[in-house]
Amino acid sequence: SEYIAPCDCRREFICGFNGSAGTAIVTEQHAAMWTDGRYFLQASQQMDNNWTLMKMGLKETPSQEDWLISILPENSKVGVDPWIIAADQWKNMSKALISAGHSLVAVQDNLIDAVWTDRPERPSTQLRTLGLEYTGMSWQDKIVTLRAKMTERKISWFVATALDEIAWLFNLRGADIEYNPVFFAYTIVGMNTIRLFVDLKRLADPALRDHLQLDSPSKPELSIQTFPYESVYTELQAICAALGPKDKVWICDKASCALTQVIPKAHRTPIPYTPLCLSKAVKNATEVQGMKMAHIKDAVALCELFAWLEKEIPKGNVTEISAADKAEELRSQQKDFVGLSFPTISSVGPNGAIIHYRPLPETNRTLTMNEVYLIDSGAQYVDGTTDVTRTMHFGTPSAFEKECFTYVLKGHIAVSAAIFPNGTKGHLLDSFARAALWESGLDYLHGTGHGVGCFLNVHEGPCGISYKTFADEPLEAGMIVSDEPGYYEDGSFGIRLENVVLVVPAKPKYNYRNRGSLTFDPLTLVPIQIKMMNTELLTQKERDWVNEYHRKCREVVGAELERQGRKEALEWLIRETQPIV
Amino acid sequence: SEYIAPCDCRREFICGFNGSAGTAIVTEQHAAMWTDGRYFLQASQQMDNNWTLMKMGLKETPSQEDWLISILPENSKVGVDPWIIAADQWKNMSKALISAGHSLVAVQDNLIDAVWTDRPERPSTQLRTLGLEYTGMSWQDKIVTLRAKMTERKISWFVATALDEIAWLFNLRGADIEYNPVFFAYTIVGMNTIRLFVDLKRLADPALRDHLQLDSPSKPELSIQTFPYESVYTELQAICAALGPKDKVWICDKASCALTQVIPKAHRTPIPYTPLCLSKAVKNATEVQGMKMAHIKDAVALCELFAWLEKEIPKGNVTEISAADKAEELRSQQKDFVGLSFPTISSVGPNGAIIHYRPLPETNRTLTMNEVYLIDSGAQYVDGTTDVTRTMHFGTPSAFEKECFTYVLKGHIAVSAAIFPNGTKGHLLDSFARAALWESGLDYLHGTGHGVGCFLNVHEGPCGISYKTFADEPLEAGMIVSDEPGYYEDGSFGIRLENVVLVVPAKPKYNYRNRGSLTFDPLTLVPIQIKMMNTELLTQKERDWVNEYHRKCREVVGAELERQGRKEALEWLIRETQPIV
Repeated sequence: SEYIAPCDCRREFICGFNGSAGTAIVTEQHAAMWTDGRYFLQASQQMDNNWTLMKMGLKETPSQEDWLISILPENSKVGVDPWIIAADQWKNMSKALISAGHSLVAVQDNLIDAVWTDRPERPSTQLRTLGLEYTGMSWQDKIVTLRAKMTERKISWFVATALDEIAWLFNLRGADIEYNPVFFAYTIVGMNTIRLFVDLKRLADPALRDHLQLDSPSKPELSIQTFPYESVYTELQAICAALGPKDKVWICDKASCALTQVIPKAHRTPIPYTPLCLSKAVKNATEVQGMKMAHIKDAVALCELFAWLEKEIPKGNVTEISAADKAEELRSQQKDFVGLSFPTISSVGPNGAIIHYRPLPETNRTLTMNEVYLIDSGAQYVDGTTDVTRTMHFGTPSAFEKECFTYVLKGHIAVSAAIFPNGTKGHLLDSFARAALWESGLDYLHGTGHGVGCFLNVHEGPCGISYKTFADEPLEAGMIVSDEPGYYEDGSFGIRLENVVLVVPAKPKYNYRNRGSLTFDPLTLVPIQIKMMNTELLTQKERDWVNEYHRKCREVVGAELERQGRKEALEWLIRETQPIV
Repeated sequence: SEYIAPCDCRREFICGFNGSAGTAIVTEQHAAMWTDGRYFLQASQQMDNNWTLMKMGLKETPSQEDWLISILPENSKVGVDPWIIAADQWKNMSKALISAGHSLVAVQDNLIDAVWTDRPERPSTQLRTLGLEYTGMSWQDKIVTLRAKMTERKISWFVATALDEIAWLFNLRGADIEYNPVFFAYTIVGMNTIRLFVDLKRLADPALRDHLQLDSPSKPELSIQTFPYESVYTELQAICAALGPKDKVWICDKASCALTQVIPKAHRTPIPYTPLCLSKAVKNATEVQGMKMAHIKDAVALCELFAWLEKEIPKGNVTEISAADKAEELRSQQKDFVGLSFPTISSVGPNGAIIHYRPLPETNRTLTMNEVYLIDSGAQYVDGTTDVTRTMHFGTPSAFEKECFTYVLKGHIAVSAAIFPNGTKGHLLDSFARAALWESGLDYLHGTGHGVGCFLNVHEGPCGISYKTFADEPLEAGMIVSDEPGYYEDGSFGIRLENVVLVVPAKPKYNYRNRGSLTFDPLTLVPIQIKMMNTELLTQKERDWVNEYHRKCREVVGAELERQGRKEALEWLIRETQPIV
């Protein structure tokens, strides 16, 4: 999981860095931590001098394997907890180490846990059931669809390990992990059985038992057997012991090495994405409707926030943290609000250049009329998940700030307005977001977009928009991704413009080989600050896009602001969505 | 090799299809042939009903492995000649077959050869030596550079199997294969020895012996030992038998399975590109100068051709074949002309939609004032290799033809004028070539560009511009690729616009993280027909690009036409390069 429970924050415990991606390796002589471009600044600030920061993506940075090989004495053993390394990572690292005369060994007792005396308990929060009005499809129908895919590929068993896939499959949500409405569980689905591994205390609630039909299953093959969370290992062993010679077991290659290796190699069919992951990515009409509603409510909260900021910033009392708190407070007033979908990035001036910055008391800056403000935030509502970034200036932006903002906007529009053939993978669109920046010698060191769940994880696979080409299934109508190019001037400011967009059919003039075309429809409906644009750098097409986008914001969000009687925000919205010429 | 000697045309012998890419599989019950989008029409015309055409790249087309698995009885053996399957292909196919209960077996006696009674001899043409004035670097210096890379990666031996790499390494050229100025050879380079495997009769020429210093090597480690071509297998066996425990042998993973498997797995280091492939791709100043000269001469020939066509077509006597012949004749008048770099694609109207069409007497059409004419042609000169496509109309093109041409032109310009960071891989530029077509629901089913050799293969790795992301090393200054988007309307017309372009440093306004930027400089300098453009669809930037390109054609090629006294062509050039407004 991208976000993890406190009991699983072992890397943060050992090195101090608390970003959402990073791997620490400790040897007798060295300690090194690998993370990507989003976190170079944050990691260098959070780790002390005992640690070497390994900046992934830079030419001079060795891979973990190459680094280990370069520093280890001959015939070294590298230990890893097999429950926290993915099977595919284990395979690659093991191969590289073996070819250099070392070996990778599974350490049964995690060495961090041995020194982490006050490690928290694994959470077990209350489960929430979601009806058809939110999911559009019963869990029983999802099981039937899954089994059809298993039959098609001659698969006897499917082991689900991704928490969001299990939550999606059973139309359940939890709160075990901050920001991700999931719960600790495993599931094993056979052609006639369904096994759910979860803390059994959670299953006492009668409404939940009814939802899962635990006491009176409609059909025997839709009866769910429940087991304690920890027993997945032994139960999978028992299933595997009884496999016929032709039985195949599906497991994601990102599942833990420990669980994967329970399945004998001859029966194991590792897959980069599970059928659940693919089904979940394509939202049905009910989910799309829910996502649209969630984004309108979210826009209401943000319009209020920006109107409030405009008023309060001149007084000098608003900080990164208080602005983020205000955003949360305003969102929490909206119907069916559950919580944030990720830690709010609320950053002023130089802090904006820290791509995944999270304000802390010791870094907290005051919002002023003189610096660029970037806020990347989102929420979980029962009907959908949001994720939006806006970059604003409350005084007078510099010409360079406006220039960079406009290049980023051009990139955002280039992706959002792109028309492309059915079956196109997201990575083929990534350069559209960068072309305007590249033309001026600028760039940003992160991908352009990620899949977004529906009241699920704000980052989900298997589609996205990135220069990285792995983990990239073709885009299809109903998928939802973010479009978020940026530009970061270290020590000075950060710019990012992010909308969540829905993949929809497009109807261009021609239809080559009947393939059909796709484009994007923005779900996020929050004005993009015109003051930050150098409109002379925009083409007429781009100006038209901005005006049409703002017209839609005014129409759709304006109606909701009016309904909710939020006058000041409505005035702000109308002012900020005047057409540009 | 992409182009092969007649003795190696086994697939053509068995199925009739003579395109440059395709794989035939024959079982007791079936015969099927896989090829890509360039050849769908041609293959379906050339093969009879005994054959099933497998259209690669279409969703419904099975891979070779999947097809075999779907039709073979249990426990089947699939045979293949290990000398004509690449090691990586063998590995993938073998793995897939084994997992389905079949096996892949090496057949020592090629089954085609057993029925091919009049199979031609393997050619052994005269070798040509190239001096420093053409190569910019002696073969001795190339060996030193290669060994430095071997030392850096702790490699003891390097096995060179690609014919163009061996020709490049020794600054030699041959004519064993049509269009590719290479010769049949293998080379094995150790830290102190150089072994060259070649028909020994070829080494009698004193100038050649002197070039290779066969009789008086300057240093012992630069002494070349020569062996018969066929003895590479036994000689590599002997080398491998004497390997120390830490010795590693580099071999390209595209080398034949037969030769690869001689190297024991523990010593084998397969690489996707050899160091020679990478060095060869980055042209030095001498090579760049030679390529520029070759392209000017080539442009002279094409300007003459188009001026001639304009005059002759109304008479009704020019056919696809005679136009191609005329192009060859005009090229052959240029200094240091060696031959064509690939079979000329000269196609009228519907034939233009056959992407890699080659006119044959039975398909030959007459050029008229009513149909679009596409000519994709190129030559080998001692100083460089060319490859250019122009699409023309000698009467009045239809609005749809102009519209499609203009989208293709927009794509061509978008790539050619792109500025992008150092280290960008070509696949990230591919969508730029398609954006204008996509916007109207159109596309083309081939990549956008390939590497081009310098008096070597017209198609070479490891860089290119394609939606396919394999075989794609980052672009760097000095690399040379083609830029050739197209549009094909089956049964009606084909459009392609191809320039060969040089990767050069760009100097945009900013320089993010000191990475530096790159762009392309067109080496091809042949006018793009303005009559085919709908200039209203072009932006001002695109019009400026066309005018600046035509200004350069006029200036550079005009001067050479004048020098050569080719008046009619000069007049045509001046007329065709008038600025558009």
